[in-house]
Amino acid sequence: MSAHLDFVQKNAKYVETFDKGDLPVPPQKKLLIVTCMDARIDCYKSLGLELGEAHVVRNAGGSARDALRSILISQRLLGTREVAVFHHTNCGMQSFTAPQLREIVKSDAQSRPENEKEYIGKSVDGMEFYEFSDLEKSVKQDVQFLKDNLLVLDEAKITGWIYDTANGEVKQVV
Amino acid sequence: MSAHLDFVQKNAKYVETFDKGDLPVPPQKKLLIVTCMDARIDCYKSLGLELGEAHVVRNAGGSARDALRSILISQRLLGTREVAVFHHTNCGMQSFTAPQLREIVKSDAQSRPENEKEYIGKSVDGMEFYEFSDLEKSVKQDVQFLKDNLLVLDEAKITGWIYDTANGEVKQVV
Repeated sequence: MSAHLDFVQKNAKYVETFDKGDLPVPPQKKLLIVTCMDARIDCYKSLGLELGEAHVVRNAGGSARDALRSILISQRLLGTREVAVFHHTNCGMQSFTAPQLREIVKSDAQSRPENEKEYIGKSVDGMEFYEFSDLEKSVKQDVQFLKDNLLVLDEAKITGWIYDTANGEVKQVV
Repeated sequence: MSAHLDFVQKNAKYVETFDKGDLPVPPQKKLLIVTCMDARIDCYKSLGLELGEAHVVRNAGGSARDALRSILISQRLLGTREVAVFHHTNCGMQSFTAPQLREIVKSDAQSRPENEKEYIGKSVDGMEFYEFSDLEKSVKQDVQFLKDNLLVLDEAKITGWIYDTANGEVKQVV
């Protein structure tokens, strides 16, 4: 069964007690969180954040580079002045290399027509995946990337963190 | 006060009752949600999702194009076979155009050295922002983008939704 078939029914319960319809658009804590898409992470709960307090950007790995467009919009149009980057233990991004993933995609396309195979090969060869091996180093590099990037506001406070999926704990790295 | 100064204290309460340390890495519902970074959205609560059930990708606007890298990793390495794209009412992405945002960034950089101004101008001119004016159309376009894209698996079920920030309600568009 498709998971989306549940959405309307489950959402009806949420709507019954919903009382946050008048929250302003700009995040009240002027905070933006970058974290991984990983299914085991709920940063509202793990950081005690309330609805309306922070922008939440999530992508494979919690990559700051991948989040740059969102960070720019958040800072310039919606007033956030703090970025907290979270990577986590046991992350899928530590389980592959870009060349391996490109091979998987090309191999999956073996039975396609030649022009499609060519398009897929070129596309995936041109993509960055931002995988990493050293967790702590990856957090530090992402924070440094944002500090060095001229599109990110100088006055923004930028911190880097690790979330432990085994016990729910967060630890500041930088 | 910086918002991150609260994280450790608030997280300690989360850790006290945390009992989800043994969840598998692949999302149990084989589902990936794409939604906006907007501070007023908590898709776990609004869709009744449990920890471990779905990948959650969030960016400015809930852009499917921006999410492509994450979707590819999610499908090829972690087995998801369904994508649900959510955009929402009263979205910041409806409040500007890319040329306006580029002007804001260039204007903010007026007092910087010439070489930095040049770098900032070139960078921002080369960026896509994926802003939109028609909400429903933007959802349909994002779903079509994923259906057409050869890097997205043919067998993936793709749906498009609108979340109403005024009353918490979700509505399927496509």
